[in-house]
Amino acid sequence: MHSDAERIEAGSHHTSLAGLVDGALHPLHQLRVMGRLVRRAAKRPGTAPGTVVHTGARRVEEARVTVIRYASDSIIEESRDLAHPIGAVPDPGSGVMWVNVEGLHDVGLLARIGEEMGFHPLAIEDVANVGQRPKLEEYEDHLFIVVHMLRLEHGGLRVRDEQVSLLVGPGYLVSFQEAPGDVFDPVRERLRSGKGKIRGRGSDYLAYTLIDALVDSCFHVLEALGERTEQLEEEVMDRPSGDTMRSVHELKREILVLRRSVWPLRDLINSFLRVEEPLVQDSTKLFLRDVHDHSYQLIDTVEVLRDITSGMRDLYLSSVSNRMNEIMKVLTIMASIFIPLTFVAGVYGMNFEYMPELEVWWAYPGVLLFMLASALGMLGVFRRKGWI
Amino acid sequence: MHSDAERIEAGSHHTSLAGLVDGALHPLHQLRVMGRLVRRAAKRPGTAPGTVVHTGARRVEEARVTVIRYASDSIIEESRDLAHPIGAVPDPGSGVMWVNVEGLHDVGLLARIGEEMGFHPLAIEDVANVGQRPKLEEYEDHLFIVVHMLRLEHGGLRVRDEQVSLLVGPGYLVSFQEAPGDVFDPVRERLRSGKGKIRGRGSDYLAYTLIDALVDSCFHVLEALGERTEQLEEEVMDRPSGDTMRSVHELKREILVLRRSVWPLRDLINSFLRVEEPLVQDSTKLFLRDVHDHSYQLIDTVEVLRDITSGMRDLYLSSVSNRMNEIMKVLTIMASIFIPLTFVAGVYGMNFEYMPELEVWWAYPGVLLFMLASALGMLGVFRRKGWI
Amino acid sequence: MHSDAERIEAGSHHTSLAGLVDGALHPLHQLRVMGRLVRRAAKRPGTAPGTVVHTGARRVEEARVTVIRYASDSIIEESRDLAHPIGAVPDPGSGVMWVNVEGLHDVGLLARIGEEMGFHPLAIEDVANVGQRPKLEEYEDHLFIVVHMLRLEHGGLRVRDEQVSLLVGPGYLVSFQEAPGDVFDPVRERLRSGKGKIRGRGSDYLAYTLIDALVDSCFHVLEALGERTEQLEEEVMDRPSGDTMRSVHELKREILVLRRSVWPLRDLINSFLRVEEPLVQDSTKLFLRDVHDHSYQLIDTVEVLRDITSGMRDLYLSSVSNRMNEIMKVLTIMASIFIPLTFVAGVYGMNFEYMPELEVWWAYPGVLLFMLASALGMLGVFRRKGWI
Amino acid sequence: MHSDAERIEAGSHHTSLAGLVDGALHPLHQLRVMGRLVRRAAKRPGTAPGTVVHTGARRVEEARVTVIRYASDSIIEESRDLAHPIGAVPDPGSGVMWVNVEGLHDVGLLARIGEEMGFHPLAIEDVANVGQRPKLEEYEDHLFIVVHMLRLEHGGLRVRDEQVSLLVGPGYLVSFQEAPGDVFDPVRERLRSGKGKIRGRGSDYLAYTLIDALVDSCFHVLEALGERTEQLEEEVMDRPSGDTMRSVHELKREILVLRRSVWPLRDLINSFLRVEEPLVQDSTKLFLRDVHDHSYQLIDTVEVLRDITSGMRDLYLSSVSNRMNEIMKVLTIMASIFIPLTFVAGVYGMNFEYMPELEVWWAYPGVLLFMLASALGMLGVFRRKGWI
Amino acid sequence: MHSDAERIEAGSHHTSLAGLVDGALHPLHQLRVMGRLVRRAAKRPGTAPGTVVHTGARRVEEARVTVIRYASDSIIEESRDLAHPIGAVPDPGSGVMWVNVEGLHDVGLLARIGEEMGFHPLAIEDVANVGQRPKLEEYEDHLFIVVHMLRLEHGGLRVRDEQVSLLVGPGYLVSFQEAPGDVFDPVRERLRSGKGKIRGRGSDYLAYTLIDALVDSCFHVLEALGERTEQLEEEVMDRPSGDTMRSVHELKREILVLRRSVWPLRDLINSFLRVEEPLVQDSTKLFLRDVHDHSYQLIDTVEVLRDITSGMRDLYLSSVSNRMNEIMKVLTIMASIFIPLTFVAGVYGMNFEYMPELEVWWAYPGVLLFMLASALGMLGVFRRKGWI
Repeated sequence: MHSDAERIEAGSHHTSLAGLVDGALHPLHQLRVMGRLVRRAAKRPGTAPGTVVHTGARRVEEARVTVIRYASDSIIEESRDLAHPIGAVPDPGSGVMWVNVEGLHDVGLLARIGEEMGFHPLAIEDVANVGQRPKLEEYEDHLFIVVHMLRLEHGGLRVRDEQVSLLVGPGYLVSFQEAPGDVFDPVRERLRSGKGKIRGRGSDYLAYTLIDALVDSCFHVLEALGERTEQLEEEVMDRPSGDTMRSVHELKREILVLRRSVWPLRDLINSFLRVEEPLVQDSTKLFLRDVHDHSYQLIDTVEVLRDITSGMRDLYLSSVSNRMNEIMKVLTIMASIFIPLTFVAGVYGMNFEYMPELEVWWAYPGVLLFMLASALGMLGVFRRKGWI
Repeated sequence: MHSDAERIEAGSHHTSLAGLVDGALHPLHQLRVMGRLVRRAAKRPGTAPGTVVHTGARRVEEARVTVIRYASDSIIEESRDLAHPIGAVPDPGSGVMWVNVEGLHDVGLLARIGEEMGFHPLAIEDVANVGQRPKLEEYEDHLFIVVHMLRLEHGGLRVRDEQVSLLVGPGYLVSFQEAPGDVFDPVRERLRSGKGKIRGRGSDYLAYTLIDALVDSCFHVLEALGERTEQLEEEVMDRPSGDTMRSVHELKREILVLRRSVWPLRDLINSFLRVEEPLVQDSTKLFLRDVHDHSYQLIDTVEVLRDITSGMRDLYLSSVSNRMNEIMKVLTIMASIFIPLTFVAGVYGMNFEYMPELEVWWAYPGVLLFMLASALGMLGVFRRKGWI
Repeated sequence: MHSDAERIEAGSHHTSLAGLVDGALHPLHQLRVMGRLVRRAAKRPGTAPGTVVHTGARRVEEARVTVIRYASDSIIEESRDLAHPIGAVPDPGSGVMWVNVEGLHDVGLLARIGEEMGFHPLAIEDVANVGQRPKLEEYEDHLFIVVHMLRLEHGGLRVRDEQVSLLVGPGYLVSFQEAPGDVFDPVRERLRSGKGKIRGRGSDYLAYTLIDALVDSCFHVLEALGERTEQLEEEVMDRPSGDTMRSVHELKREILVLRRSVWPLRDLINSFLRVEEPLVQDSTKLFLRDVHDHSYQLIDTVEVLRDITSGMRDLYLSSVSNRMNEIMKVLTIMASIFIPLTFVAGVYGMNFEYMPELEVWWAYPGVLLFMLASALGMLGVFRRKGWI
Repeated sequence: MHSDAERIEAGSHHTSLAGLVDGALHPLHQLRVMGRLVRRAAKRPGTAPGTVVHTGARRVEEARVTVIRYASDSIIEESRDLAHPIGAVPDPGSGVMWVNVEGLHDVGLLARIGEEMGFHPLAIEDVANVGQRPKLEEYEDHLFIVVHMLRLEHGGLRVRDEQVSLLVGPGYLVSFQEAPGDVFDPVRERLRSGKGKIRGRGSDYLAYTLIDALVDSCFHVLEALGERTEQLEEEVMDRPSGDTMRSVHELKREILVLRRSVWPLRDLINSFLRVEEPLVQDSTKLFLRDVHDHSYQLIDTVEVLRDITSGMRDLYLSSVSNRMNEIMKVLTIMASIFIPLTFVAGVYGMNFEYMPELEVWWAYPGVLLFMLASALGMLGVFRRKGWI
Repeated sequence: MHSDAERIEAGSHHTSLAGLVDGALHPLHQLRVMGRLVRRAAKRPGTAPGTVVHTGARRVEEARVTVIRYASDSIIEESRDLAHPIGAVPDPGSGVMWVNVEGLHDVGLLARIGEEMGFHPLAIEDVANVGQRPKLEEYEDHLFIVVHMLRLEHGGLRVRDEQVSLLVGPGYLVSFQEAPGDVFDPVRERLRSGKGKIRGRGSDYLAYTLIDALVDSCFHVLEALGERTEQLEEEVMDRPSGDTMRSVHELKREILVLRRSVWPLRDLINSFLRVEEPLVQDSTKLFLRDVHDHSYQLIDTVEVLRDITSGMRDLYLSSVSNRMNEIMKVLTIMASIFIPLTFVAGVYGMNFEYMPELEVWWAYPGVLLFMLASALGMLGVFRRKGWI
């Protein structure tokens, strides 16, 4: 579907890839895997645009390609051999072909699929160069959509954002995932059971369904973070320890990571709504409007969580200050009562020869009483100050 | 009013609902009830769009449907049996039918009403899936409006946002509430008494009246929070305790929850103003403009409250620091006066054989005088520093 | 000027007002008067739109209506009996009638004026329901403008925002004030003296003149707050006390109240500029542009004040921390010097039988010298640390 | 160039000015001079629009008017007597007349110039009423531009913003400055030398040149503040004292003042770019675009400075906290070592008759050794905690 | 390509430059080199627009000019003598000439190139006046693009932004760098190898390629800062020292510098996308859209880093407060235990004659036991408070 010139350009990837696939040992690559904050890695500077370089970690042993072909009244699923071409795209209107690719490290495979389906080289480059921002790009005869699939790791404490890329054209949809996931399973189930509208509609409706499933999975992550927020809120209020702020900071960072995946959704779906027929049917747009609302809800809630975690710092600092105050009060009370008394005792421990008080018989009990009175006086002062 | 295909789709809910109504025990559901921060729950991932799932807590024993039919010169109220259809919609112009549904757990009922009235399945899905953001969606022959009804709970300390959904078409309005409430009672009263314009106008005016009542109820909540803010402000200034910041934090969170319900109102009413005849009459828009102003006022005031509660932290921290300073001053004054004196007493308590001072008769009174002078000197220093 | 139907609606206020005027004792009303933060009070929920309810405090014993009629060459002022109608509106072009109403508690009066002049019921509702946001609403044959008049109370420490409503039509302007004020006096003076353009121009120019006077009065308030800001800035720098932050907080709150009155001015005047002839003459717009600039200046300055008061907290906290540091230094120096010395004295105060040092004649002066040296050493250490 | 009616209005200033020029002693005026934060002063409330009132401080003894007339091949400079009219404006295209007025207290002069040149009264009002926000206003046959000239005072620690007003029409430009300044000198120099395009172009190009010179002078001020920021940054890091935060606060305030002068520049130049021929030639717009960039750069840099000064507070607080920690450590170490030892010494200083240890010969050295061991133990503990 | 008049203007630079090149010793210039925060320096006030003044530091001994001419099937590289003209521009379509200039201090050279190529004087002025904000300006027959090249200095702790200027016309691209750099090397490599589309496309595609390389180099810097952020995050959590906040502050400042270079990229590329043929081919825009995404990603990530570094302050302060609390606890525990005991010892060290306890044989062990019990009691209290 592309001009010859472009096909040649796309073909040239094989060559340039040769040196890059092993590039997994390149130092830059390593910190990319380490650093979650800056996910999108720079390509080797100066590589030609359209060069397919996989920048994420290799998450599966072997890439897997599955193909589902369905129409209103039929469905065929098959797992495809990586070496063979995908096959003919059904006529739009007569059915949809959904190709799902799991594992992006095999850049040769990606380039080959891109070439066979006539995808734009820049799109295939972005498929492999994970860490893209969610976006929708309209090419002449297909849409390129990047969304993030969010998962919780490390016992629900870390958000991992994986890139899912969708390439949608008339009669087909090719989806690329970094690792196998179960978010799309219910969609497959609905396809198999033939319930609902889905089998009678086009590839744009399938794209909507997949994005909807991904957005729903964001809500799951958000719920977990919301719960964690409420937990930490209680912890800060009731029993703040040195680790509490650390947990709050980590929660905050996860919310930031989530936020980065969620904010661009709004624009993405707005762009989707503006794509015209035949790529997106008007009847699909009503459903997209629904996802649009959900993306707003996601954003609203993320912002509320952010505000609340920010407020926790104030709560924590005030709680720490209060405890400090309590400690200081104890110290001050103890010192203020006993230091003067010790001084008095010290005075009568002096060895001067002429200290007439020492010989008086009531001096000792008198001094003791005086000490008692002074201690009680001090306590009275502190009580009046409200310290005890 | 919909095509057959869509009616079939809508009909398919019954089937898919079968398994979901009992889904109340699904773990996800439970945390949804717990978590106030993230209200909108994800559906079971991958369920077909248009599937009606109730995601809130069940707040009433049994759903209740009441129908009011009115025209300029007549009004009929009836409580409807859940099993029967609602009946014919009056001709636009000749009267309005207002159906009010309290309790959303009976998803079968919702789906049936949706089907009978020809509502879009996505709208009915959102009715049941509470926790939607306030919004207005325009379908071909009806409007779908979501607004939040705010109430104070727990002695006025918690804001609860319930979802109220309105479906408005020519000659009818169907409203869905999570629980019975009295916010709409005065509207019913006005309908019964026949005072004012309301009975002579269409369903769009009724929608405006209901939204106006809901916005007014927001002001009630806002007033209570405003009062609480002023109370806490005084508490922080006059007698800040460890719990004050906690209350401030809780207030802040309630304001955030309120804010989330209030901000989208502006867009909602803007969309309402842009809906064209025949769904919304131009004569109604003048009234909508009024609600529009009120929504701005709500937002303004929420933002002022937010700024003021943020400022309280500074006030609190400075008050805590001041008290700490006072405590430290007491400690420092006591220690600085008595520790040197104790040292002097210690010196003359030493047992050296050759301490000529010990034998001088005026040594003891001399030392006492010296101690007094040094204590007074210290006090003078502290007074000069402004500490006492 | 309105249809009969609407006049009936407007007339129905009398009835519904009957029960509401005494409503002054309604609990909600009371907190409204107390709470400055949330000024706009909710109406009794569900009252019909257009119901005239006064929501502010009653500020004058008796409402007062004055009418000024002027043309290029004549001016007539009269105080009007509340019971009589206002009289005919002059032909546009042949003169202007300015009706000024002071005191809004007499809702019957407001409704009657509204009816006589043909104002929209919603406008009259907003006149009485004080606490509206500054705004301009365009009705078919008149403009409704709400502006805030700002005054300083409590010795210049509190900003009070009163609502001034202007209803402007061809040949007339009706202004409503909560309480008598002198802001409009100079305008009256100019009208009487006949100087300047004012008498030869229409009611829109009069509206501009009044808004200009109100904006100028905002500058007076702003100047006072600016001065207070500079005062507090110096206080925070030179002699911060526990009350300083309290004053800063109060200043901040007043700035927030001011801000809420000032920000909407910009939109108001933008709307004013967009109103077309005949309601607003093009020749008036040049003057409005001037007020427009002033509203921007107000906003700029309010924001600068806000930033500066926010910065004061940092200054205060750092000053408090510094004083704390100083206190701690004194304590630490005193304790670090004398506690070891006291210990040494304690050692030679022990009563062991075999303490050979005690008998040596130079032991006592030796110990004293050692103590002196150790104290000086300590002082040296502290000086090196820069503490003294 | 104005209608007679307006000329009369303008003429009426003389009358109303009579009382206002002496108004310099009006209390409001005084605080205006004091208060830098709120520069724009309210006019005496209710004065007619177009009344020329000077609101700044009088900065020169006597106003000075200089006139430069130039064309491609000639230039004439003259200092004009205040009492005489300015003279004829050259035909557009055949040359440009630049009138520069220094000193704005002589409002009679301003009014006269305004009248002679046919400027709009509101423009002349704004010329005298200094403290306007930078802006561009388009009148029928001239542009009115307000820009701020920034200078550093008090040894570079204070930013003073003076108002420079430009009135630009075909063939002439009148500039008003509060005080004589040297920012325009190089422009005069270029005019005299005849180098560059400037003499062959119109008054719009002259306006551009003057604005460019003013923007450049902003950069000078910004550079000084940038340097001061870097100085303070180092001071906060290396040797923060009680005065450091004060300096930071003052710097922050100056940045705010600068910011207020700089932000509106962007809109000003955007408006300038939208003015159409003949007032602004298209060939001049290319140059304006350049100033436009510079205004963005100014804003960018001001914001960076603002962020950095905000960050200094954190640095300062953390440095103060660290010093506090160090002080507390010294106190705690001294107290923790010697207080227990003093207690032990105290025990053996008791006068009980039956204290068998006292008689043992090795008791004294034993106790001393024990004390030493305990002190060393304490030090070990503190070292393990990392305090020493 | 310009009119004679403009060529003369451009020619006049030589004259005005004569005095300015030595201007390197001007005091202003020096602080410009020092100050990284305010990079764009003011020209000597009042210099004519279009005057070429180099405002950066001289980074190379001698400027270097290299010229590459390429077409689909050929490529010629040559290093050009500074004194000679560049030579003819190839016909658009038949090849591209890329002139690269390293070193901007030789303003004579810049002016000469500008004149030969017919660049607008304002563009050449901006080339030399480094510290421009990234921007794109469209002249009649060429584009002027400013981008920043970011490098890390001082062991990766400082971001240096160098200005790279591109002047792009049909068939040629002239790039100006402050210092030699290797960012463009891979592009040259691709040109030489002839791989990919690059040689067959126009100068707009070359411009895209260079911008893409520069954006990629931003990612490298961002990755380094991201890594540093994660390092500091761990340091703050695990072993915060006095220097940590300093490092955080420095990191923050670098992020601000980076941010200033990155934000304007978005607008730049938006402008690029809006340039019409023939200056930018539609086929190139698809590639530009890709850079557009990358610029969004850069901004997103910079903002995340900014948020995280801001959060570190909270973490640091809470960690410092916790350590302070721990220190205070130790002090309070030691003091509270031993000060009362010392007092008791002091009492029995008094020398009163009548102290009957002294003679009782079990008094001494009794007192010791009492002391032990009281110390244990204290410890119990502290344990209950959770301090130990």
